[in-house]
Amino acid sequence: MADNFADILTAAIQKKQNPVLVGLDPRAENLPEGMLSGSSVDQIADSYRRFCADVIDVVAPLVAIVKPQAAFFEVLGPVGMRALADTINYAREKGLLVLLDGKRNDIGSTATAYAEGYLGKRPESIWGCDALTVNPYLGDDSLRPFVDVAKERGAGLFVLVKTSNPGGRTFQDLQFVDKSGMLDGSVDSPKTLYHRVGELVESLAKETVGESGYGSVGAVVGATYPAQAGELREQMPHTFFLVPGFGAQGGSAADVAGAFDENGLGAIINSSRGIIFAHQREPYAQKFGDKAWQNAVDAATRDMISELRAETPAGKLIES
Amino acid sequence: MADNFADILTAAIQKKQNPVLVGLDPRAENLPEGMLSGSSVDQIADSYRRFCADVIDVVAPLVAIVKPQAAFFEVLGPVGMRALADTINYAREKGLLVLLDGKRNDIGSTATAYAEGYLGKRPESIWGCDALTVNPYLGDDSLRPFVDVAKERGAGLFVLVKTSNPGGRTFQDLQFVDKSGMLDGSVDSPKTLYHRVGELVESLAKETVGESGYGSVGAVVGATYPAQAGELREQMPHTFFLVPGFGAQGGSAADVAGAFDENGLGAIINSSRGIIFAHQREPYAQKFGDKAWQNAVDAATRDMISELRAETPAGKLIES
Repeated sequence: MADNFADILTAAIQKKQNPVLVGLDPRAENLPEGMLSGSSVDQIADSYRRFCADVIDVVAPLVAIVKPQAAFFEVLGPVGMRALADTINYAREKGLLVLLDGKRNDIGSTATAYAEGYLGKRPESIWGCDALTVNPYLGDDSLRPFVDVAKERGAGLFVLVKTSNPGGRTFQDLQFVDKSGMLDGSVDSPKTLYHRVGELVESLAKETVGESGYGSVGAVVGATYPAQAGELREQMPHTFFLVPGFGAQGGSAADVAGAFDENGLGAIINSSRGIIFAHQREPYAQKFGDKAWQNAVDAATRDMISELRAETPAGKLIES
Repeated sequence: MADNFADILTAAIQKKQNPVLVGLDPRAENLPEGMLSGSSVDQIADSYRRFCADVIDVVAPLVAIVKPQAAFFEVLGPVGMRALADTINYAREKGLLVLLDGKRNDIGSTATAYAEGYLGKRPESIWGCDALTVNPYLGDDSLRPFVDVAKERGAGLFVLVKTSNPGGRTFQDLQFVDKSGMLDGSVDSPKTLYHRVGELVESLAKETVGESGYGSVGAVVGATYPAQAGELREQMPHTFFLVPGFGAQGGSAADVAGAFDENGLGAIINSSRGIIFAHQREPYAQKFGDKAWQNAVDAATRDMISELRAETPAGKLIES
């Protein structure tokens, strides 16, 4: 029996005493001055590799887990995918857990291919990720291969439940009828698509529960909906939450407080641009600027950690 | 103004006089004897590159469009992605349209990165695909960057609406309430999540409509639900359908008939394993076997074309 991903993640959060998830979203136009060595895809991919390694050097002593965004590497083609693989390997070498944000899914043996390729340590898995984000639209049987491979390899999943974009409401907030043709839930608290997806994810979390009380199957729950995060926390007691939308997308520490349990566990809070491109925003731009951009990353990470400790149950992580 | 993808696809279907979409889903365990040169990922990726090129050589004179499945290349890591890029390029060189089955999506600038990376001709896009499958769970604003890039570059999209796996029902068949809290639609014909997604896709198809009467934004509509294909055909008159599930997944020509318009247009019918691994199934296994596997691909493709012409409105394509 492999180790349980939720236990591994919980231990890493307790060791670093904070729930920050640093997103690695490299973009050519935001790189610090002098970092981009040219405009060919090979040069951009090489710059991304070096930039991400430098960010990893700064955040590895501070946080438990990083999240490379597949799209920003994929847009560079195969050489970008090589830079992604190198970034994943480097982060693991530095002792970080790696959650790949790929939002993959498919059916049957195709889902198995994604799961086997991405989940688990190398060389068992070629990409060597600790966890992967997945999309639930294709239904319960599409998630099964991911859950099975994750269990077998001590890896984890984060299933999209409630996303942080305004258009997330389009389908996720639709209200359903129950078997008798009446509104499912109450008028004040109707059941929506995201509740239904949440129920499935919670059942998969229970199936993969570890000693931490959480399962290896987690949920993506957007921080732009603070009340909903707390409500889902109650309805999904075994489900680890990945909360995007902090910082650049408008979520504050108070907004994400509801995602934690009373011990400050059960949630990881993501910031990407807010940390890795801190040199471009105040107060870090004036203080550090492009030349000392790694100091800006360091300061922004420490500030986010402090903010979460002060304003959420994550403060409990330093008391224990 | 770029050419319209639906017009390009329609012209290619009319030229080849059939709606067959050949899926390129390479799997090491199914390759013809002697094709696999070794068990390292480099050797497997190289075998996939050669195998797909050989399939393309056979089907290029026969069909309009092929569909590489990203997962089977991704599972091999960066060298697999290189083989995928080479496969896409080779198919385009041979005059085929290329639809990448990646089922991608994300929000904001991340969705833009996927769209810009995959959609359009090289070098404008690094991957150089004519079209991409996308997942609608993240909502209307997540689809917008894909639609904008597709319009600008004369490329296309196929959005998952009703998938062919049994678990597709989990969420896609949920029934909704309307604004008054009552069942949306009638008891006999309730509106489900896939109808709502279909409405959005049809509106995007209208927005991107070309001279063919179809838009550049299409829908994935599973062939294991024949009645639903016909019903959706009526409700989505501007939407091109990608129909998976033919052959290996159990759909017959009669099952997919409802996906076409009266001229035999508006749909592409996918078969993957049924064609590319025809050497492993009867009647092709006995007749051709591993040694003449390309003849098996040729025969299976021609048989599928004949079947569709005989039992669906696609027969009209040879009369015009």
